[in-house]
Amino acid sequence: MPNVVSPRDKALALTELWSPRVIAEIDDAYVKVAKVRGTLAWHSHEDEDELFLVLKGHLRIEMEEGPVHLDEGEMFVVPKGVRHNPVADSECLLLLIERKSTLHTGGVVTPKTRSLDDQLRPV
Amino acid sequence: MPNVVSPRDKALALTELWSPRVIAEIDDAYVKVAKVRGTLAWHSHEDEDELFLVLKGHLRIEMEEGPVHLDEGEMFVVPKGVRHNPVADSECLLLLIERKSTLHTGGVVTPKTRSLDDQLRPV
Repeated sequence: MPNVVSPRDKALALTELWSPRVIAEIDDAYVKVAKVRGTLAWHSHEDEDELFLVLKGHLRIEMEEGPVHLDEGEMFVVPKGVRHNPVADSECLLLLIERKSTLHTGGVVTPKTRSLDDQLRPV
Repeated sequence: MPNVVSPRDKALALTELWSPRVIAEIDDAYVKVAKVRGTLAWHSHEDEDELFLVLKGHLRIEMEEGPVHLDEGEMFVVPKGVRHNPVADSECLLLLIERKSTLHTGGVVTPKTRSLDDQLRPV
């Protein structure tokens, strides 16, 4: 049986930035948490939407149409195929929902890119 | 383009109990919010997991193995095929993630059962 988890507590416990960690699965998607500060990388997911929910702090998602600003408790779904770049000017805790097939930096490999095995390490 | 939404604010704005409303979609799943108090109904979803995240209050999910208690900010995934019954002793706000195909009271029809059209009404 799955466990009760507090996404915020799990995200607070993270020690590495931009290192998403899986805390639950729902069918073919993973629920992840991440602690972020700074800039990830411009990328897109051609076949998968991606949900961002801010657990603490503020996130800016840069997109070609302009940035989206998320305050604590706010949520946004980046549609499949849309190039985006998450930026946090100060430390920010996130809940993410991504397909199990989703590469978290899309087709772009950067020093911040983490393997799925890495993301599946228990928090 | 999708909008930034605050699930908690959307749930706070609901006037009907046990009437889940879609606030976003991510691939073949809906993100819903609900305001609940009392008991829904024992049911299961044979082919779909269901995510519960408590935005405010406390939720008890009765299951045959025993109840799961969720406080504010806590999350639980009811696995596919597992009979469950959400109960809130006092008013509780929920974020739910369900497949678009999921019937919110499973194969059980009760006076609380809402059609998908009903759930898709804007909040």
